[in-house]
Amino acid sequence: MDSLTWVVFDIMGTIAFAVSGAMVAIDKRMDVFGVIVLALLTAVGGGMVRDVLAGITPPVALCNITDFMLAILTALFISWGYTRWPISHRNLQRFLLLYNICDTIGLASFTITGMLTGLGREYGNPYVLPVLLGVITAVGGGVLRDVMARRMPVVLYKDIYATASLVGALVSCLLYPYIGILAASWLCFALVILLRAGALRYDWHLFHPRPGKRLGK
Amino acid sequence: MDSLTWVVFDIMGTIAFAVSGAMVAIDKRMDVFGVIVLALLTAVGGGMVRDVLAGITPPVALCNITDFMLAILTALFISWGYTRWPISHRNLQRFLLLYNICDTIGLASFTITGMLTGLGREYGNPYVLPVLLGVITAVGGGVLRDVMARRMPVVLYKDIYATASLVGALVSCLLYPYIGILAASWLCFALVILLRAGALRYDWHLFHPRPGKRLGK
Amino acid sequence: MDSLTWVVFDIMGTIAFAVSGAMVAIDKRMDVFGVIVLALLTAVGGGMVRDVLAGITPPVALCNITDFMLAILTALFISWGYTRWPISHRNLQRFLLLYNICDTIGLASFTITGMLTGLGREYGNPYVLPVLLGVITAVGGGVLRDVMARRMPVVLYKDIYATASLVGALVSCLLYPYIGILAASWLCFALVILLRAGALRYDWHLFHPRPGKRLGK
Repeated sequence: MDSLTWVVFDIMGTIAFAVSGAMVAIDKRMDVFGVIVLALLTAVGGGMVRDVLAGITPPVALCNITDFMLAILTALFISWGYTRWPISHRNLQRFLLLYNICDTIGLASFTITGMLTGLGREYGNPYVLPVLLGVITAVGGGVLRDVMARRMPVVLYKDIYATASLVGALVSCLLYPYIGILAASWLCFALVILLRAGALRYDWHLFHPRPGKRLGK
Repeated sequence: MDSLTWVVFDIMGTIAFAVSGAMVAIDKRMDVFGVIVLALLTAVGGGMVRDVLAGITPPVALCNITDFMLAILTALFISWGYTRWPISHRNLQRFLLLYNICDTIGLASFTITGMLTGLGREYGNPYVLPVLLGVITAVGGGVLRDVMARRMPVVLYKDIYATASLVGALVSCLLYPYIGILAASWLCFALVILLRAGALRYDWHLFHPRPGKRLGK
Repeated sequence: MDSLTWVVFDIMGTIAFAVSGAMVAIDKRMDVFGVIVLALLTAVGGGMVRDVLAGITPPVALCNITDFMLAILTALFISWGYTRWPISHRNLQRFLLLYNICDTIGLASFTITGMLTGLGREYGNPYVLPVLLGVITAVGGGVLRDVMARRMPVVLYKDIYATASLVGALVSCLLYPYIGILAASWLCFALVILLRAGALRYDWHLFHPRPGKRLGK
């Protein structure tokens, strides 16, 4: 997992998550401190919750300046860009595509780092902890972002997002004793990307027991 | 505490808490993933927060598949039941009574497990930690549910609920050096059940410094 | 840090933070249990999050009855005072000044205790952890208060508050190898007080990328 490929994936994910946090913060008219906090929380919050749950304290993200500076610089860039950049429809489309690609890669690579943390600590049932830590790492940051911004967490009512992470982590946890950790990681990566891309392309949704306009918006 | 009685109480509590999480999620029009997450958080969230605070990592609930499957199955059943079941007034009343019985037993048995965790780690003042962990285990899941669903936590403004847990934990912590752990547990159980049943039956409420319609609904 | 001065500062901060929690709870029409919970969370929540992140479990605040009783008594006093005390404009002004003084001293002394916790555990980059723990200790309680009361966390969109704590912690972390821990603590204290007092006096604000009325109020 220390190969250059994964580092690049991780950086892409961190930046994409920081962008989404910064955009929510600006939308809620926070000041630049709030924009930085939300970018940080979204980018490293999932990993922090994972580390606290797994008993890794202080969390890796709090001792490490890389992800940190990445999120802060992203937040400052987005803050500046928001005030300066005239966004045409065409630019936005291109930007959205780029954002979705980075975000999906982040979802996949964060799922894998969470799952590997869980596999490293063998307690009780061999699937529950790795799968949960994978999903928490992948979506925890977004949930923290939404709670801080007084939004209902997006993963709870919309889209195939956490579900992609869940399926990827579960399948590769089940197969990892047979195919080894590297193949399981790549399998997880491929599954998350495919499911998420399919959901975006074909507008897949999960079953809603009570359909209709969401309350509490 | 490992006797069959307590296991049964714990299962009743887990199911009742999962039902309340699932119902809030459906009310907020979440998809089935959201319903499962809220059922899980409500059922095992209080115990997870307790374990993290007490330094038990990873939390027991994350390594154990029983509570997990119980909450997921409850969530799926409620999701399915919501779309299929014509609920007559009479059915609802019977269901509410059953729900309140399970929920109250859950409140009592979760208070006890939290208190016992606190008594097992003797730090500083002998009452503060056990009482707090008891209350946190009992109401923490409901608070997480409400925060995720963008509701004001119900325990903060309504009903004798957390207070029942608090009184039960405090009294049995004070008496436990004299009566032993088993009697203290049953005393706590009886106190919580009595206070909660009284509050439901006679509509007891705590003092409101500023009465009137709640803001922020 | 164990000298009487710091103990006094800490008590002033705890009381001021408990007052702000109790006032928000009353404003949201919570019952007296909610008022106590919010006072407690605001007063000791930042320190609890700091301890969990730093791996100090159970958190100091959960084993210690002093801060605890202080917050509860403050909450009861405010609840009682709210219903009894006719507040004239003149009284309110005097009270606000007193509140701001205590709150600012609390901000400064909580920043220092957080920073010292971080300096005590040398991991990775020597500045990131102490500065983050300083800021989290200082503003974490207020953020928890706002999340529980369904408000957007105030530090994210208004005022120079967290920023004062951040600047104080960062400057004194950078200088502490040269000037020693005691001078660094006092420097941090002075910086936080000056910045916060300036912000209150001259109505300083941070840059807003998207100015205008805040959404989500």
